[in-house]
Formats: sequence, structure tokens, C-alpha cells
Amino acid sequence: MATFDFWFSIGSTYTYLTVHRLAGIENETGLEAAWRPFSVRAIMQEMNNVPFAGKPAKEKYMWRDFQRRAGRIGIDIELPIAYPLEHFDRANRVAILAAREGWCEDYVRAAYRYWMQQGLPAGGEENLGKSLADAGQSVQRVMDLAGSAEVEQEYLAATDAARALGIFGSPSFVVDGRELFWGDDRLEDAVEFWQAMAAS
Amino acid sequence: MATFDFWFSIGSTYTYLTVHRLAGIENETGLEAAWRPFSVRAIMQEMNNVPFAGKPAKEKYMWRDFQRRAGRIGIDIELPIAYPLEHFDRANRVAILAAREGWCEDYVRAAYRYWMQQGLPAGGEENLGKSLADAGQSVQRVMDLAGSAEVEQEYLAATDAARALGIFGSPSFVVDGRELFWGDDRLEDAVEFWQAMAAS
Repeated sequence: MATFDFWFSIGSTYTYLTVHRLAGIENETGLEAAWRPFSVRAIMQEMNNVPFAGKPAKEKYMWRDFQRRAGRIGIDIELPIAYPLEHFDRANRVAILAAREGWCEDYVRAAYRYWMQQGLPAGGEENLGKSLADAGQSVQRVMDLAGSAEVEQEYLAATDAARALGIFGSPSFVVDGRELFWGDDRLEDAVEFWQAMAAS
Repeated sequence: MATFDFWFSIGSTYTYLTVHRLAGIENETGLEAAWRPFSVRAIMQEMNNVPFAGKPAKEKYMWRDFQRRAGRIGIDIELPIAYPLEHFDRANRVAILAAREGWCEDYVRAAYRYWMQQGLPAGGEENLGKSLADAGQSVQRVMDLAGSAEVEQEYLAATDAARALGIFGSPSFVVDGRELFWGDDRLEDAVEFWQAMAAS
């Protein structure tokens, strides 16, 4: 079977839609996505990709569109949401550790839910306390490890790997290590590409 | 019935997908979209919205994604395409005149087809000659009128109207004069919103 990598950063709004939908799509299709956290913020800064700052019409639209898209899949979003995340890197370093240890999806789903639906920004102390508890993890142990040089190195290496694949946004999907799809609204295209590879 | 405005600029790549798909969706749903040309380039320059220049990873992805999306609806795109358009404003001033006179869809479909599938950039002399012939128009008459101060004023006024609606990209869809959707990949969302209004 071709591989299917789900590259993401906690902190991207639309990524929540994929985080919410992915398990259902896996159940329907037999897909098994690998969760690959990286720093989309580092890559966007390098390319001077500034989607919203100084672009109020585009930002206003994004929130309305995000709210509508969330509504279509049964998620009720109350605006405004804390954005951008203050503790972006901390949220994602925890995800790096979680991916290594096998509890990434549980943590990321919880972190998004507390951020988007209960007003607790991902990466903040309150959010981490609740999300890690939901994922069955000890806050103290995780925070010690997530702050280690080793996890930081792994986070940088993951971001290098994303960059090398041509990734510039979150969520991104890479099928068979080469075909790139960007955006929750391309998840179906990516899955169909994966299915076509499996059938051929 | 709620109104449904299709705001566009010839010169946007993804707009071709909507131009190609819209008639079929109208047949299926009873929708009647109003074709509203404007200058997305003027608005993007004002907001310093630079999606691709200096962002090679994003531009490379856009072409691949555009090609895949076109393939899904049966359009074979051979890359590279002449982009951005040199005669962007001329292509769109002709569309302004065409919208006033009732042959906008025929002209825009032809202009895109010659640009994207035969390598003749929209707004260029060869493209205009063929597209206007396909739309049953005299090139001389159209070029005289499209270069007039009156059409230029109408083009600026259309762009002002788009800006006032919060539009920042092409294609955009505005339902009932207020609900904005951006991108060919939101055409279904826009049509569903329009249908929900019609049903309520």
C-alpha cells in the first residue's frame, strides 16, 4: 500500500477540520494516515507567506468560511477564537513526542477541541493539562521531555523534511512520499489519489 | 429567489474551473448566476496580497493542483501556461462590455479555452480575435468600445463594488448580496447556501 502522511501544525485553523474528520475517513476507506507534526510557522516565515496580517478582508472571510465549513461537519464554532497561538511551538513539540510514543491523535484532537470549543488556547497550560489527561499522559513527564533538546531536534528535522517535500501549509497530505495536497478541502482528492494507487 | 453573483477576473487560473462548470450546475439546480467582471489584480495589489511571486514552493504546488483539479472535470492542461497575463485589464474590460451586452459567458469561456488549452494568452490579439469571433462579435467594434472611458469607469466601479463586498480573490460568489464564498472549491458551498435560502 502507498503511504499517506498527514503533515500538520497545531495552530492552523482549518487543520482542525481534518483532525476531526480523519478517523471517519480511515474507517470508511481502510486508510491509515501517519501523523507528522512540523512547524508550518517556520516555513511560512521563511517564504514571507503572510496570509492574514494586514489583510483584514481576507482574515474576516477566513473566519466566516472556517465557521461555515466546521458547521457542515457538525462542529459549532463561536467566534472569536484566540489566534494566532502564543505557545505554538510548545503545542507542536508535545505533538512530536506524542507521535513518537503513539498518542498523537488523542492529544491533537483534545488540544483542538479545548482551543476551538472551550476557549483554551492550544499549547497553554490549561489546555495542556486537560489534553494530556485526556490522552492518558502525565503532564510533568511530557513537559520535561517536550522541552528537551532531543525533541527540539526532532521538531526541526520534521520541519526540514516537510520543506524538502515542498510543503508550505497545514494541513498537507503526501501520498506515496511524493504527491502533495494542501488544505482540508483537498483531503478527498488526496484519499482518491491514494485509492487509485492502491487499485493500480 | 436570492441573487447569485459570480465575481471574477480573467487571469485567475482556478476561475477557469468555475467558468467551465457553471453552466452544468445551473442546468442541474435552476441557478442563474450573474457574471460580474472586476479587477482582482487591483484589489490584491492594494492589500499586498502576493500569492506566488517569491514563493516557488507554493507556485509549483498551485500548478500541480490546478492541473489535477482540471483533470477531474475533464480538462487536459499542459504546463506551462503563460502566466501572469500581460493584457489582464484588456481581457477584463472586454468582459465588462460583454456583461453589459449579454455575451459575457460565451466570450469568457472562449478566452479561457484559447489561453489554457491552445497557448494564446487571454487579452492578447490572437486570443481576442478568436474569442470574439466565437461570441459572434466584431473585433473592431468591441475594441473601440472596450477602450472607451465609459467602460474603464464601469470596470473601476465594478472593482469598487467587489471591494465593498469584501471580495479579495477570484472566483468569488456572493449569495443574496451578502454571503461571500471564495474559490472554485467553494462553488458547491455557495450553491447549497443559495438553495437553503430558496427553501426557507
